[in-house]
This record gives sequence, C-alpha cells and structure tokens, in this order.
Amino acid sequence: MPKISKKGILTPESPIRKLVPFAEAAKKKGIHIYHLNIGQPDIKTPKVALDAVRNNTIDILSYSSSDGSETYREKLVTYYAKNNIHIHKENIIVTTGASEALLFTIASITDPHDEIIIPEPFYANYNTFAITKGVNVIPVTSTIENNFALPNISAFEKVITNKTKAILICNPGNPTGIVYSKKDIQQLKNLAIKHDLFLIADEVYREFVYDGEEHHSILSETGINQHAIMIDSVSKRYSMCGARIGCVISRNKDFLFTVMKMAQSRLSPPTYAQIAAEAALETPQHYFTEVVEEYTQRRNILIKELKKLDRVTVFTPKGAFYCIVQLPVNDTDIFAQWMLENFSDKNETIMVAPASGFYSTKNIGKSQIRIAYVLNQKDLIRSVEILKLALQQYQEENI
Amino acid sequence: MPKISKKGILTPESPIRKLVPFAEAAKKKGIHIYHLNIGQPDIKTPKVALDAVRNNTIDILSYSSSDGSETYREKLVTYYAKNNIHIHKENIIVTTGASEALLFTIASITDPHDEIIIPEPFYANYNTFAITKGVNVIPVTSTIENNFALPNISAFEKVITNKTKAILICNPGNPTGIVYSKKDIQQLKNLAIKHDLFLIADEVYREFVYDGEEHHSILSETGINQHAIMIDSVSKRYSMCGARIGCVISRNKDFLFTVMKMAQSRLSPPTYAQIAAEAALETPQHYFTEVVEEYTQRRNILIKELKKLDRVTVFTPKGAFYCIVQLPVNDTDIFAQWMLENFSDKNETIMVAPASGFYSTKNIGKSQIRIAYVLNQKDLIRSVEILKLALQQYQEENI
Repeated sequence: MPKISKKGILTPESPIRKLVPFAEAAKKKGIHIYHLNIGQPDIKTPKVALDAVRNNTIDILSYSSSDGSETYREKLVTYYAKNNIHIHKENIIVTTGASEALLFTIASITDPHDEIIIPEPFYANYNTFAITKGVNVIPVTSTIENNFALPNISAFEKVITNKTKAILICNPGNPTGIVYSKKDIQQLKNLAIKHDLFLIADEVYREFVYDGEEHHSILSETGINQHAIMIDSVSKRYSMCGARIGCVISRNKDFLFTVMKMAQSRLSPPTYAQIAAEAALETPQHYFTEVVEEYTQRRNILIKELKKLDRVTVFTPKGAFYCIVQLPVNDTDIFAQWMLENFSDKNETIMVAPASGFYSTKNIGKSQIRIAYVLNQKDLIRSVEILKLALQQYQEENI
Repeated sequence: MPKISKKGILTPESPIRKLVPFAEAAKKKGIHIYHLNIGQPDIKTPKVALDAVRNNTIDILSYSSSDGSETYREKLVTYYAKNNIHIHKENIIVTTGASEALLFTIASITDPHDEIIIPEPFYANYNTFAITKGVNVIPVTSTIENNFALPNISAFEKVITNKTKAILICNPGNPTGIVYSKKDIQQLKNLAIKHDLFLIADEVYREFVYDGEEHHSILSETGINQHAIMIDSVSKRYSMCGARIGCVISRNKDFLFTVMKMAQSRLSPPTYAQIAAEAALETPQHYFTEVVEEYTQRRNILIKELKKLDRVTVFTPKGAFYCIVQLPVNDTDIFAQWMLENFSDKNETIMVAPASGFYSTKNIGKSQIRIAYVLNQKDLIRSVEILKLALQQYQEENI
C-alpha cells in the first residue's frame, strides 16, 4: 500500500473535529447541543449581498480574474480608505477565504524548515497551514493572567533565528479576543524592520471591536511597505462564512507577483461569492452598529455569568467573538468529550473547543476552553448554566 | 527588504499570463482578439444550475461541511454509478475546484524532494502545484508523431526511483486531447501496483469524448483501491468554471483521512457554488449530446482547416477540447507574442498558448501551440485564416 507523506501524517486533526463523532452520537440520543465551539455566527447576512446573488444575470458561469474581479477590488479600495488603510486595487489579491490568503502568503515567503513566530494561543489552522508547507511555528506565549496582552518584544527577539521569515498576529484575536494597541503594532513593526522579517496581520475581525477600542491596522503604519502583509475575509464581517472570499493585501511588489503566480495556478476565486462580497460593501452602517451592539451584550452576559462560577477565570475580550476560559479541570480535551458523551441536563449539553489546539507549546492551555459567543443571549445564559452543572458533576465523579 | 522564498521564485508564471499585457495593448489599439488560448467554453451553463442559485433561500451564508454538502455527495454517487464508477459518499471530498483537489492530493502523498511522474505535454499547473509543495515532476515524453499516445510502460519504469510517489495522468488529456484506452489504464495500474505508487487520474473532461470512443476511469478498475485517486471538477462539464467546485475520490481511507485534515483547515468549499453543482446533476442528457456534437463539429472544422496549412502538423484529438499544433516556427513563445504585438489582419488577430509551458523537458515543444476549440465554428475558421496569414508574414519577416 503506498504511503501517506510525513507532512500528511503530521498535519493535525482539528481539535474540534475529534469531538464531532461524540456530538453526533449525543444528537442521536435526542440531546440538544449548544454549539459554543465554532465561529459560525447566527447573524443574518446583509440582504443587499443575498439579493445580489438572487438577482444575478449570469448565463455562463465563467472564471473571474485570478486576482479577483476588478470592480470588487476597486470598491474594496474605498472600503479600506474608510478604515484608514490607503491602498490601490493592485495591492489586493482576492482569495478563496482568508485560508487561501494565508496559504499563498506562507508559500511565498517560506521554504521548508523556515520559521514563523506567532503569539499563542493562536488560531489552530495557522499551525496546519505551516505544516503543509514544511514550516515550523515558533510560539511566544501570552497568558490569561496578563489578559493575553502582546508578550514583551524581548520574548519575540529571543526566538528570532536565521530561519525566521515572519511574525504572524491575529488582531483582533481569535481565540483570545485581544485587540492590540497602536503601540503594540508599532513595536512589532520596528522589530520586523530591524530583523528584516515580514509582519503578517490577520485582521478578519476588524469590525468586531468593543468598549470604544480602536482597531489599528498594520497597513495604516508608514515605513513598512516591504514588510507588511494583511489578511482579510468577508466571512465574519458580513456573516458570509460560506462565501469563501478573502484577500491578501501588501505594497511589496515581489510578494504580490509571487502570490499572483499561485493565484493563477488555481485559476480564480469563486464567481457567485464575489458577487455577494461586492454587494456586501453596500451594507448600511446600522447593520454593523447593531451587530456590534449585539455582540457586546452577548459578551457582557457571557462574562458576567462565567465570573459567577467557582474557580473559573475569564478575561473580558475587547474584540472578535471568542473568549478563553480557564476551568478547574486538568484536561479539557477529555472534559469537552465527557460533556458530549456522559453529561446532559434536561436533555441539553454544550460543545466547546478545548484550547490545547490553540497552543504550540506542549502541555499548556490544557485547562482552558474557547467559547464563541455566536449564540443569542438566552442560549448563552443557558450554556453557562450547563457548564456549571457539568463542572459540578465532573468534579464529583473525579474525586 | 525581506525575501521571497526559493519556492516562490521557482513558481513559474503561466505561459499564457506572460502574453496578457500584449493582448491588452492590442485591444487598446482596437484590435479584436480571438481567444484560442484558454479553456473557458462559450457554452451556456445548464439552466437548472443557474436557477437553483437564483432561487436560493439562504439567509445566513454559512460554512458547509469541510468535505462538501452531504446531499451533493449523495447525488454524486448516483452520477458516478451511471459512469461505471461505483463508490460511496464517504469516498468523496468536495474541493474548491480540481486545483484544490490536486493540491491536497500532492500534499497528502509527497514530502519535499519526492517525485511524481507525468506524461508530457501536461497541464502546466501540475508543475506549479508540485513546485509549491517542493516536489519534482519527472516527465515521460509523448510525441505528436505518435499522436500523443501513452508512452511505452518501460519509459515510465525507467524513471521510477525511491523518491517516486505517484504517476499522474490527465484523461481525456489537456493539452493533447488524447483518450487513453482501457488497456493503457490497465498497464498503468499494473505498474502502480508493482512499484506501490499512487495512480492519480485527472478526469475532468470525462464527458468530452468523440467518435464513439469510450472513457475508462481508473476507478472502474478493480484491485487498485489503495492506489487510485481520481480528480474531478464541474468546471468544464457544465460550463461552470467560475463555480470552483471539484472533488477528490479514493477508496484509500488513510489518504482520505489526510486530505480531510487539510480540507478542515480551509473550512469548506464555497456554499453557493455547491448549490449550483448539486442542481447541475439534474442537467438533461440532451444538453451533453448537443455539447458533444458541437465540440465534434468544431474540432472537425478546426482540424480540417489546420491541415490545409503548409508545414503544419496536427493530430485529431479524441477528447477534451484542445489540440496541439506543430508550426514551422522556432519559438512559439516569440511567435505568439508577435501575433499580438506586431500582426493583425483587418484589425483582428489570435491569442494562442505556446506549448513550451506544457513540457517539463527543456527545449521541446517550442514549435508547438495549444489551441482550445471553445469558439464557434465561424470564429474558428477565421482564426485559422489569421494563423495562416500570420505564419506567412512572420516567415517573410524572418528570412
């Protein structure tokens, strides 16, 4: 039998995915599951985007340009200018989701055995993308005690080697909900310039910033044109995860030329989804105001309820729609599975993401889970109640 | 300035893409270009597929399953059964085009410096995909004199090393139009089993087979469950290139498990496009009968006209909608550019794909071009007339 590659074997299975069979078994037993495990919002997609696809007049569903439709990129320029990001359409390559933007980026700037530094906990797929490219992720740990603040720059500097090609941040952060300050970004910028590294910022949660905080894009910085790469996506912004439209933006022409060669090889991003994404740019401002208000209330309710729990630690996130919660259990991989397999209250349980998958350093984060507050407030309150009961029963059983 | 990766630099620019600036300049001068260079058919997408998207009732455009929507995969099982390919929905992973299916396949079965054997000329992006994975393509040359028949199995056997992981074929073939016989497939099968290699067949042109030839899928063969991987796409079949829906099919569970990990990391294939692809399976049979009849006539006209030209060699393709044409010029990269830059007849010219990009062996195929017969018959006749005039003038200027 021919063999799977080493790379293929090393590619991790998603920590959530491992739980799916247990979730399916629970459903078969008639148990209702509150899904706190994924970033699939329940918010409606803007009508203007949905209508544009329903009213499309395509009769031959042909390829678009490899870098995305020109009218879409032109309108994106206006969108970014409103966000204090001043670029040209030539700086944008439209991709099939932020996932593809990240894959093209990593492939363009790394060779096998190169290194990318990422503050952990981080979005688990960064590691998967790196592995499929033969690249090593070098973590710099941020802690819940320190509200997941950007680690000291000296911690980054300490792990820079001649293999280091880039620093990658997610801002606002998945899974932490951290929003980096302008000063944080400038410190990272100076570091990237000093060591001649690419600075990649995944800014897909740009719009989801609370309590009057301001998001500061790396592309709003000057003096970093050759180093800065921004990753973006319409998935969360317009509740359009299924569109699979993202983009990579840079002012570095060599980088864009290389990404474009890869973009050409996969021909084009999806055509219908680009119609939706282009129309979504016409979404009225009140949509975002309402969505941000809704997420703020959800976050407030969730954090308030979580803080009532005994020996549970949580930091109030300032952005995105996730939080990391420290639980009084030793291994949340086992606990998360147990909640699906062996626990229910009034025929209901919850599914959460064990946080170990968000850490690259072994054996940290094992008492943490990630909660996505993508459910309505009533469901969130009930979910925390279930978590409380589950923790009680789990601790009793494990005494 | 931080550096692009070696891999990024090695990634070839599409040979057609290099011509695009010259095509754009020609258009600015008011010259009409007949596009024989790309596989973007002018055939209408089936109405049943277009209507399904127009009538969609989505209000939250959410992720689909990472392996594709279950109802789509169930219906695909029926489609394949009609084509003598008997599989289960668990054997199918839906991808973002055949491109992604190929990328996942290569990543799952190769590590850097491994080798994949491909009969050349081959679809140029196979090489690009291999390079982005650090993999070497080992060509086995087929010749126009031999009608691009499958090279003798001994030619494959000669280049097998301990680095060889797979043999990749395109059947029906792009750019050659070859249709491999059942005997060809069985010879490759025996070779793959003997040397324990994966046998990958890109069968996206399955429906485009002419003159009563029959397409024989590798998945119709027995005794090769662990070795056979089939790549497919809706792009050409339903003239839905912009959907970006393909799939990878295998009965090898380790392989599927590995592909699935990669599929999860990019979350899901596009949702709207899956609606179109699923509905397209209801396309009435007469659509294909008419399309095949149309392509047969286009091919017949094209080959007949080309054969009238002096010192021009062409083989009558049996499948897909491409043919390789040998011209009395030394370097078709230069000639193709010249036709855009320095030639026109009645303000019209043609754009063709120089064939050198389809060969991995250096300095062969330099007198060949690929023509895609995706234009109507009148335009094809006119295109060959332009080619004839261009060849005459080019030869006069170059004496």
